[in-house]
Amino acid sequence: MDLRDATWTDVRDLETDLAVVPVGSTEQHGPHAPLGTDVVTAEAVADAGLERFDHEAVRAPAIPVGVAEEHRQFPGTMWVSEETFRNYVREVVESLASHGFDRVIIVNGHGGNVDAVREVGGTVTRDGEAYAVPFTWFEAVGEHAAEMGHGGPLETALLRHCEPELVRDDRIEEASAGGADSWGEWVSHTNLAYDAAEFTENGVVGDPRDGDEQRGEELLELAGDALARLLEAVAERDVSRPERR
Amino acid sequence: MDLRDATWTDVRDLETDLAVVPVGSTEQHGPHAPLGTDVVTAEAVADAGLERFDHEAVRAPAIPVGVAEEHRQFPGTMWVSEETFRNYVREVVESLASHGFDRVIIVNGHGGNVDAVREVGGTVTRDGEAYAVPFTWFEAVGEHAAEMGHGGPLETALLRHCEPELVRDDRIEEASAGGADSWGEWVSHTNLAYDAAEFTENGVVGDPRDGDEQRGEELLELAGDALARLLEAVAERDVSRPERR
Amino acid sequence: MDLRDATWTDVRDLETDLAVVPVGSTEQHGPHAPLGTDVVTAEAVADAGLERFDHEAVRAPAIPVGVAEEHRQFPGTMWVSEETFRNYVREVVESLASHGFDRVIIVNGHGGNVDAVREVGGTVTRDGEAYAVPFTWFEAVGEHAAEMGHGGPLETALLRHCEPELVRDDRIEEASAGGADSWGEWVSHTNLAYDAAEFTENGVVGDPRDGDEQRGEELLELAGDALARLLEAVAERDVSRPERR
Amino acid sequence: MDLRDATWTDVRDLETDLAVVPVGSTEQHGPHAPLGTDVVTAEAVADAGLERFDHEAVRAPAIPVGVAEEHRQFPGTMWVSEETFRNYVREVVESLASHGFDRVIIVNGHGGNVDAVREVGGTVTRDGEAYAVPFTWFEAVGEHAAEMGHGGPLETALLRHCEPELVRDDRIEEASAGGADSWGEWVSHTNLAYDAAEFTENGVVGDPRDGDEQRGEELLELAGDALARLLEAVAERDVSRPERR
Amino acid sequence: MDLRDATWTDVRDLETDLAVVPVGSTEQHGPHAPLGTDVVTAEAVADAGLERFDHEAVRAPAIPVGVAEEHRQFPGTMWVSEETFRNYVREVVESLASHGFDRVIIVNGHGGNVDAVREVGGTVTRDGEAYAVPFTWFEAVGEHAAEMGHGGPLETALLRHCEPELVRDDRIEEASAGGADSWGEWVSHTNLAYDAAEFTENGVVGDPRDGDEQRGEELLELAGDALARLLEAVAERDVSRPERR
Amino acid sequence: MDLRDATWTDVRDLETDLAVVPVGSTEQHGPHAPLGTDVVTAEAVADAGLERFDHEAVRAPAIPVGVAEEHRQFPGTMWVSEETFRNYVREVVESLASHGFDRVIIVNGHGGNVDAVREVGGTVTRDGEAYAVPFTWFEAVGEHAAEMGHGGPLETALLRHCEPELVRDDRIEEASAGGADSWGEWVSHTNLAYDAAEFTENGVVGDPRDGDEQRGEELLELAGDALARLLEAVAERDVSRPERR
Repeated sequence: MDLRDATWTDVRDLETDLAVVPVGSTEQHGPHAPLGTDVVTAEAVADAGLERFDHEAVRAPAIPVGVAEEHRQFPGTMWVSEETFRNYVREVVESLASHGFDRVIIVNGHGGNVDAVREVGGTVTRDGEAYAVPFTWFEAVGEHAAEMGHGGPLETALLRHCEPELVRDDRIEEASAGGADSWGEWVSHTNLAYDAAEFTENGVVGDPRDGDEQRGEELLELAGDALARLLEAVAERDVSRPERR
Repeated sequence: MDLRDATWTDVRDLETDLAVVPVGSTEQHGPHAPLGTDVVTAEAVADAGLERFDHEAVRAPAIPVGVAEEHRQFPGTMWVSEETFRNYVREVVESLASHGFDRVIIVNGHGGNVDAVREVGGTVTRDGEAYAVPFTWFEAVGEHAAEMGHGGPLETALLRHCEPELVRDDRIEEASAGGADSWGEWVSHTNLAYDAAEFTENGVVGDPRDGDEQRGEELLELAGDALARLLEAVAERDVSRPERR
Repeated sequence: MDLRDATWTDVRDLETDLAVVPVGSTEQHGPHAPLGTDVVTAEAVADAGLERFDHEAVRAPAIPVGVAEEHRQFPGTMWVSEETFRNYVREVVESLASHGFDRVIIVNGHGGNVDAVREVGGTVTRDGEAYAVPFTWFEAVGEHAAEMGHGGPLETALLRHCEPELVRDDRIEEASAGGADSWGEWVSHTNLAYDAAEFTENGVVGDPRDGDEQRGEELLELAGDALARLLEAVAERDVSRPERR
Repeated sequence: MDLRDATWTDVRDLETDLAVVPVGSTEQHGPHAPLGTDVVTAEAVADAGLERFDHEAVRAPAIPVGVAEEHRQFPGTMWVSEETFRNYVREVVESLASHGFDRVIIVNGHGGNVDAVREVGGTVTRDGEAYAVPFTWFEAVGEHAAEMGHGGPLETALLRHCEPELVRDDRIEEASAGGADSWGEWVSHTNLAYDAAEFTENGVVGDPRDGDEQRGEELLELAGDALARLLEAVAERDVSRPERR
Repeated sequence: MDLRDATWTDVRDLETDLAVVPVGSTEQHGPHAPLGTDVVTAEAVADAGLERFDHEAVRAPAIPVGVAEEHRQFPGTMWVSEETFRNYVREVVESLASHGFDRVIIVNGHGGNVDAVREVGGTVTRDGEAYAVPFTWFEAVGEHAAEMGHGGPLETALLRHCEPELVRDDRIEEASAGGADSWGEWVSHTNLAYDAAEFTENGVVGDPRDGDEQRGEELLELAGDALARLLEAVAERDVSRPERR
Repeated sequence: MDLRDATWTDVRDLETDLAVVPVGSTEQHGPHAPLGTDVVTAEAVADAGLERFDHEAVRAPAIPVGVAEEHRQFPGTMWVSEETFRNYVREVVESLASHGFDRVIIVNGHGGNVDAVREVGGTVTRDGEAYAVPFTWFEAVGEHAAEMGHGGPLETALLRHCEPELVRDDRIEEASAGGADSWGEWVSHTNLAYDAAEFTENGVVGDPRDGDEQRGEELLELAGDALARLLEAVAERDVSRPERR
């Protein structure tokens, strides 16, 4: 049940303790893909997962601005600090839990949010306010995951499937040419770069030409199935904390 | 230019220092109107204002969860603390300002956000990071403003105009019957109530029957015009701080 | 019972759960009125209200510095940030509540504090630590309220009644001449100004010549009566939080 | 110049960079002395020091609630957390510094505030916002200092001199009998007690019978002289920070 | 140069802008390995790296308590919150940078610290206070990395090499028998567990029997070499921030 | 039982509620004594006290960086803010208390930490999380205490006894010559200095020539005995909070 469209009486009549909170980012995704990519994809995956899930759950509106200072050199990129993002997401989860939706999956569409949503999940879970876990869709798409990049094949493909008009076909070649092969600059397993602009000229990582609509469909199916499995697991999990040793 | 859909290169090529940030709330609006009412209306007004404005401006995605703990007794209501909301909005504004969009109007659709967005505007303006002012649409609709309520005639009307399928026609009578006449419980100009549930049984204030589509159209026109005038004023204002006396 | 002058044993022997906390500001009030105006008036109104009230209540010392950065361009204006002011007032209220004075009225003499004291009241009330409401005296003086201004007729009148020697008679004409007609610069119901110095040359708003001693007496009576009614209402109110819907 | 009574134009015309900020506490002082003792004494000493000082300085209103949780078991005691008190005092100092009063003496009347005001002084001084130092009057009264106690001979004496009606003569014997000899419970130079109620039955430490009016007069003279010397030293000090070694 | 043992004059005479800050954790490592494992190993690796590095660098004392609430069910585990740990590490780095040691490697011995030290590095680097990167030794030991576990083969081996008396030989079999095969409980690439006690009975993950002294020697060599390479890269890196696009 | 070396099963089998947490500082101690002086001495005293104590207690690793900004002009000095230090120490104490070690002595080796550790002790004790008190060794060494200084006779002596190789014999004369006689610059019992570099050229206060090994031995004995007495007292103390008056 989409909370944006539901009334409070609809929510009252629902029997579930599950909630899904999409979190994205509004940030550069190369010259060919929109700033809202991570919101569009997080919402699409959240909905796909809920569709494939047999039981009820509430679906919150997507949180549109996340941890994205790493893209700050690219015009239009929006961000908040890690601390503010964690607080915002945590309090959103707590407000849902106050109504009994205290098993929460944070469906994440942005790499920069990964650490933050895991930390938030740990905080609310250990404090006993809710049980919350993150799900980052592009980690759960089988072998595709290795090609994630940024504005690369996966995101371009998923956009083409979900909102094709948001992909600028006429800039795909340019996007591909000016992008980087991989994320970061690594020495001894340490990434020396903090800003994407240190290693990618136009903000792209990976080749967006490898992201056609069909691949997007497959990605959505894979991610939706994975999320549905996670919903099942979260619904059934014993979330009590373990005993002291 | 809608940042969700634009690419960073589109934003780069834009010549403006103006930004519009819609802020709403996901909270009960009676048995007949959706939890997302304040997001839907804030976005509609933001877009109407931009349409009526002769120059360019960027339009951020709406911030969907605000200061709404006062509705916490009604299922589905989401909220964050005042402090977290202020931080989130302020940092959103600052990230826009980092790209030169340092004249910002926060288009607000929720009464509970009013104090917070004014404080944020003052903070960023005095610190010199940006010039930001709030605009709360239902204060700027002429004589209609007096009938605002909550899930009442104005919001119902505007929803009917913008997304009519979100209004439950079959619950309007019930919504009207169980609502309160006015907001709060007042003694000596002090509101003794902190939670809406102290004075409204079903969350409604005002009579939603008085909110037909035509009124909604008029409201959007009035609010859109007002916002366009404000955009004009903000664009031209001398935002330097006054001299010490 | 004035806490400044009472001993702890006096307080122990008292039977009441009511407390009154005056909050003011030390800030410019034009060339004719003292920086301490908002403290003087908040204390006078607090005492007038308690006098008119039939039961016991403790009266805290006035908090002398508030949210007044908007007057920072005028020498001698003191202020703290909104956050610090809220914390200070909230903890003051909580310390009173720890002794059983858990029905608290914050008697406010300064417009810049209004949002902050309302927020504090909501926080402590929802958390169950105390029931606290703000009372801003110049909102509760009937039709006079419309003429509030700043260092204008109302404050000048009340000072003349309470501490006449603090008003500089010989600067009233100058104060009147250099003042503004109204507070702020408004477009589409948005105040474009954040600093008083943007719209008033000498810090005055309204005409202090309209504030004679007799008017001050009437204001104190009106405000004192209003506060006494509020004390009565707060004493008797069911402060339990409403049930979930 | 007392900021409470001065107008901003008076302050503007002043030539000084010196400010004095009294800080007290509203807390139990035994059955015979008022909760406001530390405010009364801090203000008296501040004024005595300024009187004895040859040059101009502004005098802020006293901050009435401080770090006093250690007295929380005694009815009427008010307090804020150390953090909030530090923030409040620091921002008060910074607002004064914004007007050029950037050499500040915090005149303190309460032992519980000592660490906090020293920390605040260090913070603003090292940050370059102002040069601020604390002055705690009962440390600067020669050999009397050893008998400080709490509601003991020194405070009782000073009250008798400044506001004699605040001392309850008829409870002095009781105050003396129920008091403790010294502050705290010490083992290996560590105070094992955190709350005054752990070691004093009625809140008194020291014998208030040893505090007559004459002694109060002498204390005020000693403290006033000491503060005047400090004002002189602060006015003349090179407050630039030392060079790196 | 080890800061613990050096004098400030020694440090003054040094010519380098490089610093190394070991961070560990004091937390359960199974029945056979000490709570201090992550401190011992972080320090050993830091020293090994510095030894292999041709130039000077200062070496800070190890920060002994980190982000380890996930082990809270096991007696003796110490931890601080993520926020406090980040602040502590960041300010430590900033104090080093104030002396010109503004290229900093945080040598980390604990998985729970990984996100925090990366965030700290980003914060100080983007703010321009220092350039700081994390190095987590067990990620940089080639194919061994895959077997990390907790109190498992790698840590046991490295302890045997560095401080063999800290490994309880007589509990290795028990440690092995009661341990888990892998870290966490995973569904759809999400770890459902937040506390180690959810999936390991005795706190061990991996088989400590596979961690002999010789392997420890190899690990130290690999990690030391990797750190030396990173020191070289950090020393030579252009740390200016990239230009806006 | 030293937590660094113990396993969690060792800790589980222990029967005690006592913990000792050494806190030091890494900061300049003159040209002859190491930056780590306050860590070395805090640890030595902690161990000496535990040795002399008849019962069990756990001993945490030393916290190596404290409140030392006052030495910032001297290369190599490390510090964190007071707030961060307080949070770090408090959370360390709370994590110990979570395992039942809820009677804690913070063994402090640095003057700059004194206020902070007292505040932390008060906070956790009043909140009921643990009973914690600070012990600063150089206050508990009888008549020696008067000669404390900085890098002076006491610290030099104790270092000579504990880790003699850390004292640079060949710089003792220089250290003595360039040091100050006493700490600070005092007027009216107020220290006008905030940075040590304001009053000591080389960072030394007191004459390190008066600190031979024999004196160090005596100091360790005195401090160890004092700490043992304090452990006894803390173990037996009724730590319940007193009743309201």
